Amino acid sequence: MSAHMVQLVLELTGLFVFAISGALMAIRKRFDAVGILILAVVTALGGGILRDLVIGDTPPAAFANTSYLVIPMVAALVTFFAHRVFARLAFTILVFDAAGLALFCVTGTVKALEYGLGAVQAVVLGVTTAVGGGVLRDVIARETPALVQVDTDLYSVPAAAGAVVIAVAWHTGVPLPPVAVGAAVLVFAFRLLAMLRHWHAPLAWRSALLPPRPPGP
Amino acid sequence: MSAHMVQLVLELTGLFVFAISGALMAIRKRFDAVGILILAVVTALGGGILRDLVIGDTPPAAFANTSYLVIPMVAALVTFFAHRVFARLAFTILVFDAAGLALFCVTGTVKALEYGLGAVQAVVLGVTTAVGGGVLRDVIARETPALVQVDTDLYSVPAAAGAVVIAVAWHTGVPLPPVAVGAAVLVFAFRLLAMLRHWHAPLAWRSALLPPRPPGP
Amino acid sequence: MSAHMVQLVLELTGLFVFAISGALMAIRKRFDAVGILILAVVTALGGGILRDLVIGDTPPAAFANTSYLVIPMVAALVTFFAHRVFARLAFTILVFDAAGLALFCVTGTVKALEYGLGAVQAVVLGVTTAVGGGVLRDVIARETPALVQVDTDLYSVPAAAGAVVIAVAWHTGVPLPPVAVGAAVLVFAFRLLAMLRHWHAPLAWRSALLPPRPPGP
Repeated sequence: MSAHMVQLVLELTGLFVFAISGALMAIRKRFDAVGILILAVVTALGGGILRDLVIGDTPPAAFANTSYLVIPMVAALVTFFAHRVFARLAFTILVFDAAGLALFCVTGTVKALEYGLGAVQAVVLGVTTAVGGGVLRDVIARETPALVQVDTDLYSVPAAAGAVVIAVAWHTGVPLPPVAVGAAVLVFAFRLLAMLRHWHAPLAWRSALLPPRPPGP
Repeated sequence: MSAHMVQLVLELTGLFVFAISGALMAIRKRFDAVGILILAVVTALGGGILRDLVIGDTPPAAFANTSYLVIPMVAALVTFFAHRVFARLAFTILVFDAAGLALFCVTGTVKALEYGLGAVQAVVLGVTTAVGGGVLRDVIARETPALVQVDTDLYSVPAAAGAVVIAVAWHTGVPLPPVAVGAAVLVFAFRLLAMLRHWHAPLAWRSALLPPRPPGP
Repeated sequence: MSAHMVQLVLELTGLFVFAISGALMAIRKRFDAVGILILAVVTALGGGILRDLVIGDTPPAAFANTSYLVIPMVAALVTFFAHRVFARLAFTILVFDAAGLALFCVTGTVKALEYGLGAVQAVVLGVTTAVGGGVLRDVIARETPALVQVDTDLYSVPAAAGAVVIAVAWHTGVPLPPVAVGAAVLVFAFRLLAMLRHWHAPLAWRSALLPPRPPGP
């Protein structure tokens, strides 16, 4: 199997798992079949669509290859029937989800760099690719985004670490393929460790005394 | 009146009714005049703007023809004063809303196909055109999107049915004008029947026992 | 210092203050450090990104100049530590926020006009530039957008007034530089007055009796 083929299989697996996470959220919120389908597709493809709209690659990759749309739809259908199985496999799904996080943050960062964006911009877009769909899922489901909650294990920080590695390698001329694999492994391992050790991002420094209200509308 | 003229009149009528639905939501949530205006414009134009950003037609049609922006503003102004009349005309408004749903799903699907997108992609964008504004309205108004709630009558499913008819006809070479009219009638009738018979989309299969929480942030 | 340099300094100051408002919201909602960073960046840059996606200027200006991304990140970092100082400086921050509102509404309207959009469209995009980030901040933070609440002082109306002045001057051929400065002063003074006098937008006319529910999903 060629490297390109390996990447496609990994991508479709990642989309499938992201879509399951959206579908399970919809089921937990007691949304109907339409809601399950919408949340599955948005969770899987939302991050990549945001990235492609920003870099000006339209139609986004999500709309260029039919598999990218069909896979989340299939995941929604499977979850519609098998959600109780998936609920028992929660940890396994989280491991695959970590793999998807690693892959999409790497491919997103590389794509932004290939489109000529600067290092900081590419890191932001790489992280957006990996976590944007989950934020959209939470907004539509009216949940506080898991990403910003203090009691969730680190998710975007591992993605950012991998994106920084890619951006630095790109700008220092290190050959990309081994760096990309290394960065993906870093993100995956960092995320798994964060899950197992329950690493969290901190609240604001001395935030026990909160400001009464934020300025401006 | 030419076919093009008929379509423009229908489109502006559809935008007007969609905008009323946004303005009424704002009033029900006790938003101020600014909120009424914003929700009216977002509900009417949001779906088409999303579609045009995805297919890369910028500025979106909503910004190309001044009428497209002015009509929802006028609808907001009228609703500001006449909302109690409109509240009594709820069923009539729903009938016009079904006509808008039918029209925008057909024109959205056709536009996506004309821009070279595949059948599945065009169906997704056709449905997005018709229902995207309503989802944005609900997100801004902090309501669970009506589209995903189990106790609402089918709305996106009729749109999807019409979009599928268009996409199949396009790819099999059937002449478009009669198919477009037929698909619009199908969506309209299907939506009215769903309203009258209270057809709902199902919850997930055997979802009485819900998963404790979805995987991943 | 050249006019261009003055504008850049003003813009970066505006982004810094908008980002503080996002970071303070995140802290008030007890989001973690990741949430503080995300809300700071989204609040500062969201409006301009929406404008640039609509007019088709990709990648958006927010991604073209690294300072535009770094400044909100620095603001997030500073607010992480200094939020209690900022909470005491609430009024000062609101004054700077009004300056940012004035500046971004003027530059947003001018940019839309330069891209060939009509007057109404340019006004909508100018206001979107100035207030869009705040709406996205509120949506992600699960707050009812301050913009639509009846008990908040006018914010988008001053921006709209300034945008209308710019659009009228553009279409009547009045030289732009003095008009732009005048419009910015108008927005700034109007917003400060609205804050000091607590000017609000009205609820819908005779809205004491609310409609039972809005039509359509």
